[in-house]
Amino acid sequence: MSGNSIITLLSDFGLEDVYVGVMKGAIAQINPQLAVIDLTHQIPPQNIAAGRFCLMNAYPYFPPTTVYVAVVDPGVGSQRRGIAVELAGGFLVGPDNGLFSGILSLSPVIVAVELTNSNYWRCPHPSKTFHGRDIFAPVGAHLASGVSIKELGNQVAPDSLVKLPIPDFKTTNTGITGSIQYIDHFGNLITNIPAAAVEGKNWSVTIWDLIISSGQTYSDSEPGEIIALIGSHGWLEIGVNNGSAKSRLQLDLGDTVEIIFGFS
Amino acid sequence: MSGNSIITLLSDFGLEDVYVGVMKGAIAQINPQLAVIDLTHQIPPQNIAAGRFCLMNAYPYFPPTTVYVAVVDPGVGSQRRGIAVELAGGFLVGPDNGLFSGILSLSPVIVAVELTNSNYWRCPHPSKTFHGRDIFAPVGAHLASGVSIKELGNQVAPDSLVKLPIPDFKTTNTGITGSIQYIDHFGNLITNIPAAAVEGKNWSVTIWDLIISSGQTYSDSEPGEIIALIGSHGWLEIGVNNGSAKSRLQLDLGDTVEIIFGFS
Amino acid sequence: MSGNSIITLLSDFGLEDVYVGVMKGAIAQINPQLAVIDLTHQIPPQNIAAGRFCLMNAYPYFPPTTVYVAVVDPGVGSQRRGIAVELAGGFLVGPDNGLFSGILSLSPVIVAVELTNSNYWRCPHPSKTFHGRDIFAPVGAHLASGVSIKELGNQVAPDSLVKLPIPDFKTTNTGITGSIQYIDHFGNLITNIPAAAVEGKNWSVTIWDLIISSGQTYSDSEPGEIIALIGSHGWLEIGVNNGSAKSRLQLDLGDTVEIIFGFS
Repeated sequence: MSGNSIITLLSDFGLEDVYVGVMKGAIAQINPQLAVIDLTHQIPPQNIAAGRFCLMNAYPYFPPTTVYVAVVDPGVGSQRRGIAVELAGGFLVGPDNGLFSGILSLSPVIVAVELTNSNYWRCPHPSKTFHGRDIFAPVGAHLASGVSIKELGNQVAPDSLVKLPIPDFKTTNTGITGSIQYIDHFGNLITNIPAAAVEGKNWSVTIWDLIISSGQTYSDSEPGEIIALIGSHGWLEIGVNNGSAKSRLQLDLGDTVEIIFGFS
Repeated sequence: MSGNSIITLLSDFGLEDVYVGVMKGAIAQINPQLAVIDLTHQIPPQNIAAGRFCLMNAYPYFPPTTVYVAVVDPGVGSQRRGIAVELAGGFLVGPDNGLFSGILSLSPVIVAVELTNSNYWRCPHPSKTFHGRDIFAPVGAHLASGVSIKELGNQVAPDSLVKLPIPDFKTTNTGITGSIQYIDHFGNLITNIPAAAVEGKNWSVTIWDLIISSGQTYSDSEPGEIIALIGSHGWLEIGVNNGSAKSRLQLDLGDTVEIIFGFS
Repeated sequence: MSGNSIITLLSDFGLEDVYVGVMKGAIAQINPQLAVIDLTHQIPPQNIAAGRFCLMNAYPYFPPTTVYVAVVDPGVGSQRRGIAVELAGGFLVGPDNGLFSGILSLSPVIVAVELTNSNYWRCPHPSKTFHGRDIFAPVGAHLASGVSIKELGNQVAPDSLVKLPIPDFKTTNTGITGSIQYIDHFGNLITNIPAAAVEGKNWSVTIWDLIISSGQTYSDSEPGEIIALIGSHGWLEIGVNNGSAKSRLQLDLGDTVEIIFGFS
């Protein structure tokens, strides 16, 4: 890797405090030329699953040398490892708690290391509550500036990286049973059912006693109408034209969604 | 245009999800050197009028080659056109739904095109729900990198661009009748009455049975006092020193505001 | 100073409107190469004390030539001065209302000036309500581009800069009495008691009839448990593992916190 790479940041820090700004300062102290892009800092506090989902869906849309620094880290200060991982499509830096397991399901590991070399931290005795500032942001800045991943610490087996179990969807006699894995800002309900599972089929969604037809785009429906479609991230989602499916259907994370085939 | 221009982004995507980050990734995949400035991503969902107001008020404060990518797009996936427009003060890229009609009322069109050339999109078959990522951000990145606007698609008549009708203010025997066109984060009520309409006059605002005196600045009033003034964007606005006029006066978007002259 | 410095921005403007974007535009009009980092724009409206706290805690984490532009400015348009201050660790630009007094308590003043030279403003007749756009952002851009601070206006005595009085903590027979000076996004209650005051001691916090033990990190506690520790910014704080101490303890800004020694 030559020249500077982009760093992306994702966290549950919110934007009210200076925690995010301070991570960017720690990066600028190492290399003020680095460009930093925020993915989001509004992951619900300590919600590793939401962070995993967001990272996985952002990963395909960045240049291949991008360094993804992510901090949703309820175990900060405990024995959980800090890691850096090299993939064909970039580098991951953060806690080894499953946050990266969505990206890792898409891309094989080239090298994984535990962050044991404090020469690349902001200081040899990092805060026990803010590794984002003292370890992950600085390590990300060094990686994006061209430091070799193998300098950062001891190599670890890719198999040993923590995976976050997420529910699988199941094929049934009549369709698919899945669940809601994420709800976005618009109130769209994003399921764990990928586009491939319904490709080439007529399909609808049943919720309570409603049958929701599938369409291609929100503009296929009338304002206020509920619609099911393949979202821009490649997952089956349920939305309301000009409204919130979350409020309208009173559904939440983890709730079950039934797909039926041959009915459109 | 030589060298890189700045891209600004405005949307109703919010900051909770990775949609905004992903648009920046799509820009960086084309040209990682481009600087991107967020105008706001908290336009109320699908509120084209609020987006139009914000764009119009930001436009005078950027360098003249800036590329304004804006996505408030309830009609995404329908027949509504995607457009790019060249003005003396920059370039506009987004849906042709009236979002740019505030800026277009300030500045004559040099060239307008429909975005029909998929060579400048992220992919030939864009998502039907996320043209921000697959069409508008990439087209903006190419424009900001020096691609000629005429490469992006077929020219269209400037007159054919969609205009969003907004209420006009009216001069009466005793003053002006206008309405509230935007409410900001502080709860300031921003009317559709421009500074020029009250210039050189003594004026006050009447709301319910209140008479609100005009001042020059919030510090002209006592904490908690209601005041009317010309805001930084050049519109007559009503605010409360250290408080919210929206909560205090129980007024909302579109509500009527009466100005009386010769009474201060 | 040679080459471009980083500019940080802090304000109470929120992110819903284009005020922050417009400040960045005003900077780019002067020098489009400057890098701008947001500290936060969600300081509670007109809360100078919260802005002061955030600036003080961000200051140590940026490169030493950084220009800190900050706008929490209830007195905009009044006689309050606009100032620029040079410190060993950077430059401060904003209203002289105490917003910088936390940083100023950490670092001696090299030069302080009142912003009287309108050649470095965006325009000779700035808006009476938005000095952030018309004075502070442009002045910050000029400083970050290498203009000498002495060009910006008349020198003023460092002693004359406005200080914001904040409550002191007090040592008692049995421990320390302090108060809550900031509450972060996680609901952590950050006191005005610095790490040095409890260093080398066994200490606990008493609130209502609760005794809260001190730990080193949130992962020392069980989910839902209340814990007291030294936060990443160096102040004693009270938090809840996987929860909000603010909600749990029903405490707010300014409330008293008692520390007792020799009891762990």
